[in-house]
Amino acid sequence: MSFQGERGAYSEEAATMFFGPNVISTPRRTFKEVFRSVEEKSVDYGIVPAENSLEGSINQTYDLLLETSLRIRGEAKVRVRHCLLVVPGTSIEELRVVYSHPQALAQCAGFLQKLGLETIPTYDTAGSAKMLAEKRLKAGAIASERAAEIYGLTVLQKGIEDYPENFTRFFVLGRTGVPPTGKDRTSIVFATTHTPGSLHSALGELASRQINLTKIESRPIRGTPWEYNFFVDFEGHQYDTKVSEAIGALRKSTAMLKILGSYPRAD
Amino acid sequence: MSFQGERGAYSEEAATMFFGPNVISTPRRTFKEVFRSVEEKSVDYGIVPAENSLEGSINQTYDLLLETSLRIRGEAKVRVRHCLLVVPGTSIEELRVVYSHPQALAQCAGFLQKLGLETIPTYDTAGSAKMLAEKRLKAGAIASERAAEIYGLTVLQKGIEDYPENFTRFFVLGRTGVPPTGKDRTSIVFATTHTPGSLHSALGELASRQINLTKIESRPIRGTPWEYNFFVDFEGHQYDTKVSEAIGALRKSTAMLKILGSYPRAD
Repeated sequence: MSFQGERGAYSEEAATMFFGPNVISTPRRTFKEVFRSVEEKSVDYGIVPAENSLEGSINQTYDLLLETSLRIRGEAKVRVRHCLLVVPGTSIEELRVVYSHPQALAQCAGFLQKLGLETIPTYDTAGSAKMLAEKRLKAGAIASERAAEIYGLTVLQKGIEDYPENFTRFFVLGRTGVPPTGKDRTSIVFATTHTPGSLHSALGELASRQINLTKIESRPIRGTPWEYNFFVDFEGHQYDTKVSEAIGALRKSTAMLKILGSYPRAD
Repeated sequence: MSFQGERGAYSEEAATMFFGPNVISTPRRTFKEVFRSVEEKSVDYGIVPAENSLEGSINQTYDLLLETSLRIRGEAKVRVRHCLLVVPGTSIEELRVVYSHPQALAQCAGFLQKLGLETIPTYDTAGSAKMLAEKRLKAGAIASERAAEIYGLTVLQKGIEDYPENFTRFFVLGRTGVPPTGKDRTSIVFATTHTPGSLHSALGELASRQINLTKIESRPIRGTPWEYNFFVDFEGHQYDTKVSEAIGALRKSTAMLKILGSYPRAD
């Protein structure tokens, strides 16, 4: 299976959590390459972050889900525990700058401000740890404890995020769906018609069938400013009678609908 | 009034569009500082981006709106036309790397890939232009044409964004509300109760009164993973009878509700 980032990324941790410690995972540079690697059958599965409990949805993942033929086959929720990493021998007093992904920098903003550290955004948490190790910089990186092990860095401080309730939810992608387990979630995306109340009546197809909506995310439709696609998660499997009825009704009342997948809930 | 970024930022353009060419605008380093400058009465107004028609909502703005006592007093929609800027004398063949804000880099991904340029994320479009000019780097920056003028850079190419329908909507913030004009929009944020169908019934308070919902955005509630606040925009002013009735009903049926402001629509 493939994940985005460098070894030691939180995505790799999610892969291990979902597939077990012996999974063979190959890092890819971008989310797009993760999607493509599964579409082109280089690997069977891919894993991408969907949302973080502090920072919200990963927009790029949602935009790629709209276009792909892949299915969401599962989800994994990873506790994000950021660490301040340095090249061995660097003390906290020597630090002036810290490298990491903008979301990680944002999640540790309070900690970084207290230390008066300048932040430099990078593409990747584990990638910033790798870069630090390779260039032997007198700087910090924010990444996982596992990244410290992999790249031989020292953990100056653990759990530096401002809010401890920091989780990232990942989607496992594959080329086929999975059968119902009785404790599933379904993800769909739809566009409403241009009539007032159209989102309300679309959600009514779920509410009237007592289907529990667990997430709604709007993303702009490219090329038509101020119109949106709605990514909706709800409990149940697309093969459950009431879910399949709701989706049937939604197909009739929306301008576009695509099922992204039904998969076991990770609660 | 204050805006985030360096001189030549798209936010400054929005300020000029809203307040006219003679507005005195002062740049601030962060969105938080823009909010604070108005709250502390250093300035009367602030301007912050709310959403981009390609990349979606500016999460930080929404998270700050939740906490502030400020009101949204207006909106401005700016056409974003990105330019590739260099220090005079640099040719396109010499370029290896391009600096800009991650959203601007994402919006020009196709153009940059064709040229095989490496991208380096920065905090700010205009800031990357300023940095280029100060350090006389043989590199590119993606920013506005106005940033090129201000920092004495050459525009190598104009309109390099992948999608031409690229607009950013800005909020004008102040300490007081504005009266109805007959063509207004209202922004609110609410949290639903923990009952199935609660979002559907909340939106029903608008739909049943023929109030046209123009945007819904969900943001995670910090500290309680997988629960969300909903930021909703709809047509009408909070002093209009049917809007005020809808808000009254919503106050009763939601766990939290805050009016962010009613303001003239920019269409």
